[in-house]
Amino acid sequence: MKRKITLKHIARELGVSISTVSKALKNSEEIGSDTKEKVQAFAKLYNYKPNNIAISLKNKRTKNIGVIIPDIVHHFFTTVFRGIEKYANAKGYNVIVCVSDESFDKEVINMELLANGSIDGFIMALSSGTQLKNDYNHLKEVTEQGIPLVLFDRVAEDIKCDKVIINDKKGAYNAVTKFIKDGRKRIALITSEDYISVSRERAAGYKEALLDNGIDYNEDLVLKFPSMEINENLIEDFFERETVDAVLSVNEIFAIHSMRYVQSKGLKIPKDISFIGFTDGLLSKYASPGLTAIAQHGEQMGEIAAEILIDKVENDMEEETYVTRVLEPTLIERGSTVN
Amino acid sequence: MKRKITLKHIARELGVSISTVSKALKNSEEIGSDTKEKVQAFAKLYNYKPNNIAISLKNKRTKNIGVIIPDIVHHFFTTVFRGIEKYANAKGYNVIVCVSDESFDKEVINMELLANGSIDGFIMALSSGTQLKNDYNHLKEVTEQGIPLVLFDRVAEDIKCDKVIINDKKGAYNAVTKFIKDGRKRIALITSEDYISVSRERAAGYKEALLDNGIDYNEDLVLKFPSMEINENLIEDFFERETVDAVLSVNEIFAIHSMRYVQSKGLKIPKDISFIGFTDGLLSKYASPGLTAIAQHGEQMGEIAAEILIDKVENDMEEETYVTRVLEPTLIERGSTVN
Repeated sequence: MKRKITLKHIARELGVSISTVSKALKNSEEIGSDTKEKVQAFAKLYNYKPNNIAISLKNKRTKNIGVIIPDIVHHFFTTVFRGIEKYANAKGYNVIVCVSDESFDKEVINMELLANGSIDGFIMALSSGTQLKNDYNHLKEVTEQGIPLVLFDRVAEDIKCDKVIINDKKGAYNAVTKFIKDGRKRIALITSEDYISVSRERAAGYKEALLDNGIDYNEDLVLKFPSMEINENLIEDFFERETVDAVLSVNEIFAIHSMRYVQSKGLKIPKDISFIGFTDGLLSKYASPGLTAIAQHGEQMGEIAAEILIDKVENDMEEETYVTRVLEPTLIERGSTVN
Repeated sequence: MKRKITLKHIARELGVSISTVSKALKNSEEIGSDTKEKVQAFAKLYNYKPNNIAISLKNKRTKNIGVIIPDIVHHFFTTVFRGIEKYANAKGYNVIVCVSDESFDKEVINMELLANGSIDGFIMALSSGTQLKNDYNHLKEVTEQGIPLVLFDRVAEDIKCDKVIINDKKGAYNAVTKFIKDGRKRIALITSEDYISVSRERAAGYKEALLDNGIDYNEDLVLKFPSMEINENLIEDFFERETVDAVLSVNEIFAIHSMRYVQSKGLKIPKDISFIGFTDGLLSKYASPGLTAIAQHGEQMGEIAAEILIDKVENDMEEETYVTRVLEPTLIERGSTVN
């Protein structure tokens, strides 16, 4: 039984991480020479070829697009997917999805899996694990082979490829400005750690809007979740410790849980405390009161990403040029803020 | 540029449906002899081989599982997906998803795409389009080649394969019994047309519970949506026409929209009208009041489906035997029904 050897196999055989294998094969100085020798010898023995990806792709068009998203439960990613499908299907392309579960390793495995010749190009949002590791070798390998890649939402400066994002900073800035106009003084931010690119941008917009309006930035009013997983205890601790009259949340799940908690404590929304959350998914629409939301225009983002990708796939260009399309966020007002 | 010819190509070239091509290649009597000759000649000319699917699969294990779901937005399908991933990943398998968008044609295209040798077996819920057409040739082609297939939730009697379902009839029966115990007299059912297998089962449970309790079955109290798409006008017409004091809905989206509508008309939930909905997704949990739900145990369903599939993949059995695992539904009580 002959199987193509992958980074995952090498990592498993040698008991090291996929990241280590990837770096060792590139002769990175971060990896000890012992490990490097071991990995390189193993790769040679089993005839590991990162390039067979590209060889198979050059020979034929598959009319398939590979999509890798961090999770399948957040409404935002599924609406982007719908946009991708809409455009791709209209152009005669099929779409295959893999889910990275916010894990670097799964992202790498998924990329290897899809890049076995069954797709013409990738559309991806980075996993939080990848953004935390700050290791993009698996993406560079693909782009260096000339396989088109479009990143959306969660992107990285270091990767040369096309990107579609929204102006996250401005979205947060506008939300905080609305709070201030509504007379709110103690405005909290509920976010994740800064390694997630969109959270970092939104935190920057939050801070800038405060400072522009003469309000001090107070770190105590910023609740940072260590990951994208909800943690009820952190919410409880935060609202027990701090008295706030407005909350900006980087996603709707964090916002909805916080709303539930303050309501259980007898606070009235929006009289005592207002909420605005990113995404504008189904939960925002059906929450009670409805959650005022910063719409990220996921479907449009997906359509644009697919358009850029298919254009690259169908037109071989001599010189590589990359675009970054920035969409404008929109504030959708609902009952969680005052009119 | 040499490409493997697929049913889709043949259909497009000859301007007929994929279903027609599939039937014509099987010499079905439903297709006129002219069309059959044309399709068969074309397939021969371009060397169409349905069997090359199986050949490539027999030779090697890919350690990948292909999943095809009707849509990516319903919470139920994404929780099943999570269960599949959980079990499969623990066993060293990767999961690839395609979405049929409730379309027969897309389901066929996705199956052809995944069955090109990149997966070891399929886990699927049928699209509503496929259930409406009642055409399962694409599934039979796969199972006849010995490629393992597990259907979940939306299944079909005619297909010989492993299946994982919940007892939909009993779930509906229990919900209606609760309504009756709570003193409700005019109990509505909001569902889709009967060609969707789960809707048919749930409608049967609804009817049986009424009759067992001496309440006549009244067709006027059954609202049937033509598809799984929400239609606000049908909801409005229904509640304008009928006065009901309880509503069983086959999914949470229909239930939430109906709750919103009756609330906008000044009715109190659950005092004036109670609601129970299938699925128990995020929307049920966060609706106001929370929606009493019939939990379908999606994650468990996914884990069991993956377990059955991987077992088949890893153990070649002489005789083909198939199991149907039936999970028991659970009623999760929330504020939309009286205690």
